[in-house]
Amino acid sequence: MRIKLILSYDGSRFYGFQVQPNQRTVQEELEKALKVLHKSKEKISVISSGRTDSGVHAVGQCVHFDSPLSIPDHKWPYALNSLLPPDIVVRQAETVDESFHARYGTSWKEYRYFIDTSKHPDVFRRLYSYHYPYPFELKAMQEAGNLLVGTHDFTSFCSPKSGKENKVRTIYKLEWEKTDEGLQMIIVGNGFLYNMVRIIVGTLLAVGSGKISLDHITDIIEAKNRQAAGKKAPAHGLYLWQVNYDN
Amino acid sequence: MRIKLILSYDGSRFYGFQVQPNQRTVQEELEKALKVLHKSKEKISVISSGRTDSGVHAVGQCVHFDSPLSIPDHKWPYALNSLLPPDIVVRQAETVDESFHARYGTSWKEYRYFIDTSKHPDVFRRLYSYHYPYPFELKAMQEAGNLLVGTHDFTSFCSPKSGKENKVRTIYKLEWEKTDEGLQMIIVGNGFLYNMVRIIVGTLLAVGSGKISLDHITDIIEAKNRQAAGKKAPAHGLYLWQVNYDN
Repeated sequence: MRIKLILSYDGSRFYGFQVQPNQRTVQEELEKALKVLHKSKEKISVISSGRTDSGVHAVGQCVHFDSPLSIPDHKWPYALNSLLPPDIVVRQAETVDESFHARYGTSWKEYRYFIDTSKHPDVFRRLYSYHYPYPFELKAMQEAGNLLVGTHDFTSFCSPKSGKENKVRTIYKLEWEKTDEGLQMIIVGNGFLYNMVRIIVGTLLAVGSGKISLDHITDIIEAKNRQAAGKKAPAHGLYLWQVNYDN
Repeated sequence: MRIKLILSYDGSRFYGFQVQPNQRTVQEELEKALKVLHKSKEKISVISSGRTDSGVHAVGQCVHFDSPLSIPDHKWPYALNSLLPPDIVVRQAETVDESFHARYGTSWKEYRYFIDTSKHPDVFRRLYSYHYPYPFELKAMQEAGNLLVGTHDFTSFCSPKSGKENKVRTIYKLEWEKTDEGLQMIIVGNGFLYNMVRIIVGTLLAVGSGKISLDHITDIIEAKNRQAAGKKAPAHGLYLWQVNYDN
């Protein structure tokens, strides 16, 4: 049986999603819990919609795995949550067709980035939003964001460490919104490159503070050079919010 | 100069407010930061509105101390926050009259208790609200709460470890409200005994689940016996929300 899971995790104490030698990762914890649940000697491999970086959170990461167990869908979260550490929570499980693939089947992903704009940081949000107590022009940030919507080569907004050759991605939506704590940026696209959302946030904040002019955004895209864009915003403000599949 | 501070702290990693040998406490961290700021050999003693237990949070704890430094009020938070660990944040400072006393001058205090009633815990709130995924009758919980409002001897709602002899306190307000994550209980009173809010929450949840009947609340008060009331709810849902002074 192929099982699809939707899970949240607090990225603070993880070295990202994907298994790394000698580091605590979400994938490793998931596979450990599945091994115990299956009383299995073999590893139960988990495939995700994509990795998240060290320190990045997830509200709706999606993974799949194959299991010989016949556990009803609504019982999978209880079974796994009882074995997982408290910073990972399985929210939902669904038995899916063998053709479902958490990585290759994605049609779009949504990320959100939270910013605490208060003078002194909210102590309860310090691990969950980026404290940025500086003046900003929200209108300019939104206009700069609008220039990124559509299909572009995002080389300038991608870590040079990325292994991906094709850096063309489509952004369907990029919206800044005011929240109780300050700001959030909602971004939806067909795929995101290494550090892409964090570099976009950093660049748009630089537009908001006047360090980068709005006119310059098109030049930055065209430069196809990481040096052209702004700094990347810190990991702990970023959330993989939801992953969508066509069928 | 006497300085009044309003501060927030994340209680998760503190052994309460008050200095304890060999334990990390809020008071110790504050006094350490003040000592560095004053380049002082002498300890700068901090007086709070009252201690909070191990694991209990504060949104608006209030303290005072005396200082020879003439720092403008709005600069105190920056000066102290730069020296404090990230789980304590000074939100506001005010130069007050020598007659101000953070402990003896309080007129009322407000606590709030947060409950996450979702089926599977919100991973980002796990340290900041009590996960209680069980059915409850909110109306009964409110009616039971109404019986506690007023002036009563709260011996039944106080840890037997309390050193206070007079256990009569007045509750001005006790309200349950629905929130995005589930529930909050707001309680305002002229003073609270050791574990009092947590025992009230635990008892009212027991009323909500039918384990304690509404009729029984008056008997519990009259029993003046901790055994008569319900279990105490966990510390990590509780916040000292604000402290009020008459002048």
